[in-house]
Amino acid sequence: MDNFVIPECTFSERSKQLTNSAIRRILKVTESPKTISFAGGLPAPKGFPVTVIQSAFNKVLSQNGYTALQYSPTEGYYPLREWIANEASQFCNCSIKPEQILIVSGSQQALDLLSKIFIDHGSNILIENPSYIGALQSFNLYKPNYIPLPTDNDGLISDSITPDLAKICRFLYVLPNFQNPTGQTLNFYRRVHLVKLSEQFQFPIIEDDPYGDLRFIGTPQPTLFSLSNKYGGNIIHLGSFSKILAPGLRLGYILASKHVIDKLVQAKQATDLHTSTLTQMAVYEILKTGFIKKHLTNIRQIYREQSISMINTMEKKFPKEVSWTRPEGGMFLWVTLPTQINSTKLLKKAIEKNVVFVPGEFFYSEKSLTNTLRLSFSTVPEEKILEGISILGKLLDEY
Amino acid sequence: MDNFVIPECTFSERSKQLTNSAIRRILKVTESPKTISFAGGLPAPKGFPVTVIQSAFNKVLSQNGYTALQYSPTEGYYPLREWIANEASQFCNCSIKPEQILIVSGSQQALDLLSKIFIDHGSNILIENPSYIGALQSFNLYKPNYIPLPTDNDGLISDSITPDLAKICRFLYVLPNFQNPTGQTLNFYRRVHLVKLSEQFQFPIIEDDPYGDLRFIGTPQPTLFSLSNKYGGNIIHLGSFSKILAPGLRLGYILASKHVIDKLVQAKQATDLHTSTLTQMAVYEILKTGFIKKHLTNIRQIYREQSISMINTMEKKFPKEVSWTRPEGGMFLWVTLPTQINSTKLLKKAIEKNVVFVPGEFFYSEKSLTNTLRLSFSTVPEEKILEGISILGKLLDEY
Repeated sequence: MDNFVIPECTFSERSKQLTNSAIRRILKVTESPKTISFAGGLPAPKGFPVTVIQSAFNKVLSQNGYTALQYSPTEGYYPLREWIANEASQFCNCSIKPEQILIVSGSQQALDLLSKIFIDHGSNILIENPSYIGALQSFNLYKPNYIPLPTDNDGLISDSITPDLAKICRFLYVLPNFQNPTGQTLNFYRRVHLVKLSEQFQFPIIEDDPYGDLRFIGTPQPTLFSLSNKYGGNIIHLGSFSKILAPGLRLGYILASKHVIDKLVQAKQATDLHTSTLTQMAVYEILKTGFIKKHLTNIRQIYREQSISMINTMEKKFPKEVSWTRPEGGMFLWVTLPTQINSTKLLKKAIEKNVVFVPGEFFYSEKSLTNTLRLSFSTVPEEKILEGISILGKLLDEY
Repeated sequence: MDNFVIPECTFSERSKQLTNSAIRRILKVTESPKTISFAGGLPAPKGFPVTVIQSAFNKVLSQNGYTALQYSPTEGYYPLREWIANEASQFCNCSIKPEQILIVSGSQQALDLLSKIFIDHGSNILIENPSYIGALQSFNLYKPNYIPLPTDNDGLISDSITPDLAKICRFLYVLPNFQNPTGQTLNFYRRVHLVKLSEQFQFPIIEDDPYGDLRFIGTPQPTLFSLSNKYGGNIIHLGSFSKILAPGLRLGYILASKHVIDKLVQAKQATDLHTSTLTQMAVYEILKTGFIKKHLTNIRQIYREQSISMINTMEKKFPKEVSWTRPEGGMFLWVTLPTQINSTKLLKKAIEKNVVFVPGEFFYSEKSLTNTLRLSFSTVPEEKILEGISILGKLLDEY
């Protein structure tokens, strides 16, 4: 039935940017239950509060079924926006209005909507190098010109943003907490510096913060958004319920100035009308009880133990020449191998031993380092971490 | 807190295409419970099977909670794709594979994804004039060149697609059943003709069919997709669960050749990763019981009665010079006033009497007729139809 005759020239130029994510291709390998996967960016299912979510859906459908199943405003369910605005206000010690919140179908949609309103073909955008692969995929569709910026253990090196770069960019995209893929956290001074640069040169910063609540060591840093309230309103903060509740719900939000939210609302209206009314109402039911605070303690504990277990095993099993980041939260750490070891070649050997990870090269917009890789500790139980890291250690010993 | 300093030039060219839908602005007026609204495109809430949906969410969360709350493949939940493929195969009397189905977050998202893979700035696209305003909004973001085609009581006049137009277009967008806004249905001969043209000139046809199951009079027509299996595989069929189950769930699908689906999957991955796993699994639970067939009988009955009631009242209360379409299904009918009456001006008077509708001019990509308007009979109970149409009749008498 598939005798398709549409010629290639019928498709858009943009469609040539489309590729199947390398991570997804790797994840297909991991479908075997024998595989120990450090590749996925999945939250630990044991952290999903299934019965709490079930009660919330039940309550909404029992009490407000007809509203929950009808079309609803593009901006999102007002009580949910209000709740998020109140939480953010407390965090910022300032007054954020519900009108500054747009509910989205997961943070990935936020990236698509932001691309729509900010990126023209060839627009300059500043990004960390390496950066989140899903963001690159989203931006790619709108054909920007990437300006990759260097990072170190304190996150993005803010001094690398020269006035020339600041003047020509459409935005800076940054993951300040437990960055995907490196696990690094932006330090306080650089946060203040970035916000000042954004104010001085009038460029927006997209602060993608899906992991911020998953800090398991050290002191929380203020968000760029909270710092910006002293200086201006250029920060666009992305939050997600995927990592603190459950990703299968597809729920996130954008916090920004009303001016930006208004444009994003119009873009979202043309993109998918609105996010599921039922899901928004059910998540609001959970949030308003205060359940999340207690729940976060559990998730952080799971991730803390698994990250310690991974690092301890690496210290025992990996050769001395290998180094890695020590994340204070989130789901990932970043490994740097001796320069002569190619992590994609290493992956091929690892797959034979039923262990997978993501080679670092996929996370760079340019100047890929072939001797880096990302390990996720979020979904792997401790005994499997021990087994999988030991296998990788042996493979590295062979070089 | 909203002292935003990003200059306008930072925003994309595309963002200048963004406007707040006229319908949305009108709908804001209708929030008063006193208003009789013929403006909305909302399905009747009394048709929502709340308890059935509640049981389905319960069952999925009880039996498969961890899977339902985790990330899932961009393509969609496989059993749901399989169910849709089987239904479509029966309808077509052919064999459609689950790999030809992409699950989307409502049909509006299908339009955005199709825009992504088919439209470059200035690409020629063929559309009915008037056409669905949400599709125009979605396409607008990608800045196509519209080629509007004439319609009559048998839908799009297929003869208007000359070889010259067929050769230069990226696609034809058509709503064959109970079109939004006109309520017209494309007749059989034109369906066959369109499919043949699409085959001969190798252009895809986007067949948007959210209302197809809502036929309450007359004989169902074959979908363009089912006809295309005799001639080729150029038809991209959009289906929705918004009108047959509930729109608040945001669930729809695209049925096309695997070649097109593969590109759309990549576009969706960059756009929102995937549609809610939980929603997909819950809807599959409902579909597999066969509930929909019985349920559709109820919905059709509601819409049939309300449409008859509207038309009967119009015949009594509207001046002789006014004419209207007589839809065989769906939610809308289209009214043509004497040329000297401007429907936008009429709306202003109607709002004063607490009655609203959508003036026709918003549905045209060009050459707007100012003496047309769309009336929806889907959400208004019979006594309110009588009252609202009588008020409109009196206003028309005043001209």
